[in-house]
Amino acid sequence: MSKNKKKSPTCAVILIGNELLSGRTPDANFNVIARRMKDLGIIMKECRVIADHKRTIIETINELREKYSYVFTTGGIGPTHDDITTACVAEAFGVPICRDSGTEKAFRDHYGDRVKEATFQMADFPEGARLIPNAISIAPGFVMGNVFVMAGIPRVMQAMLDSIVPMLERGEEIYTQSVDVFAAESEISLRFEEIQNEFMNVDLGSYPFKVGDRFGTSLVGQSTDKESLDKAFTKVRNLINELGVETR
Amino acid sequence: MSKNKKKSPTCAVILIGNELLSGRTPDANFNVIARRMKDLGIIMKECRVIADHKRTIIETINELREKYSYVFTTGGIGPTHDDITTACVAEAFGVPICRDSGTEKAFRDHYGDRVKEATFQMADFPEGARLIPNAISIAPGFVMGNVFVMAGIPRVMQAMLDSIVPMLERGEEIYTQSVDVFAAESEISLRFEEIQNEFMNVDLGSYPFKVGDRFGTSLVGQSTDKESLDKAFTKVRNLINELGVETR
Repeated sequence: MSKNKKKSPTCAVILIGNELLSGRTPDANFNVIARRMKDLGIIMKECRVIADHKRTIIETINELREKYSYVFTTGGIGPTHDDITTACVAEAFGVPICRDSGTEKAFRDHYGDRVKEATFQMADFPEGARLIPNAISIAPGFVMGNVFVMAGIPRVMQAMLDSIVPMLERGEEIYTQSVDVFAAESEISLRFEEIQNEFMNVDLGSYPFKVGDRFGTSLVGQSTDKESLDKAFTKVRNLINELGVETR
Repeated sequence: MSKNKKKSPTCAVILIGNELLSGRTPDANFNVIARRMKDLGIIMKECRVIADHKRTIIETINELREKYSYVFTTGGIGPTHDDITTACVAEAFGVPICRDSGTEKAFRDHYGDRVKEATFQMADFPEGARLIPNAISIAPGFVMGNVFVMAGIPRVMQAMLDSIVPMLERGEEIYTQSVDVFAAESEISLRFEEIQNEFMNVDLGSYPFKVGDRFGTSLVGQSTDKESLDKAFTKVRNLINELGVETR
């Protein structure tokens, strides 16, 4: 590691929803959040998919908000009986739920006489929460402490994420290099491991791929130390040349 | 609940891999496993995405195998230095790693003189493991206690899952009904909740959708009790008629 570098923030994601666990709905949010965090230098440590179950949600939030700099949740902030995330966050932080008059008014202005009582559930937030507006829907997400609560609908989640990004402390830039070779992982893995052992501040990984009928391996390196990454990848490219392996 | 029904088995999934957390690779395995378990009546309780990090893998496996009937892992059983899942499972169960001579021979027969030492890492298993063959690759997955260890490559994972399914105890059949309406969630949510409160053994959920320019809501019911589900959904359909809401 280079000297005097600050420690990068860490984060975790909690995907909340019975529909994810039953397989009815494939998640489309985690990968979007993960890529965004990588670009910000914030280290994604874990993701959990959990049910719309009060005790589980509260315990998971309280466990992860202690462990990581930031926690992001998706799902469960709509107007129905199974949307219990907001109430669970309030209970996790030991605060009451309060109706936000600005959000309530926004719903009244938008829907007029057609507004439904259930809609106002989306104007309720834990006391002390900071609202997260979004460009898609009137209903905001919110931040409570280091917990960022977002919608489950992907385009609403993405709009909320855009609003959240400026609130986050960035970490050290994470540099990446990669090269694809037409060789099985096992043909290069021992020599690749030697390079990994030599550069402990570089994270080297290999991932098999298939293009048409041809199998290959993506060799990927990540590090916050650009110089070490460059050195390690020079060795990786020398190894590829030495083995006479075709690159993609 | 109907009388005398056995308790359905539960399960959890652990997706192992730095490439998932960095966002490089979107997961393609969890939803496939979740849908398969639903068809078997096995209740999916949670999923975790974790790094290729020894202590994290061991602790997660040991936590979840105590809590649930079955644990499924994907990733980290290839021939490279970051494939540490097998070693972690062995350590979680407190047993040594042993080379399986049948798998070793299969690799020798397949690759002949071209076989690499690294390949044999995929012939190593925790002592006492039962191997999970698959139709795609020579390298098997394995079962250790109630932990099913599978590859991360989706088509290999799916082939291993096919081999695993006959080993699992089925739960009660989970029945599903759904109807799509062109109405916002908030227009039906209070009345929908009344139906939920009347049928506590039915799990009612609502999920917004968009088709072209039109927004709507999918109303979904699940239960192991077909009769209650039918009754609840008769009420849901009556509610839709009463509200005069268009269905899809």
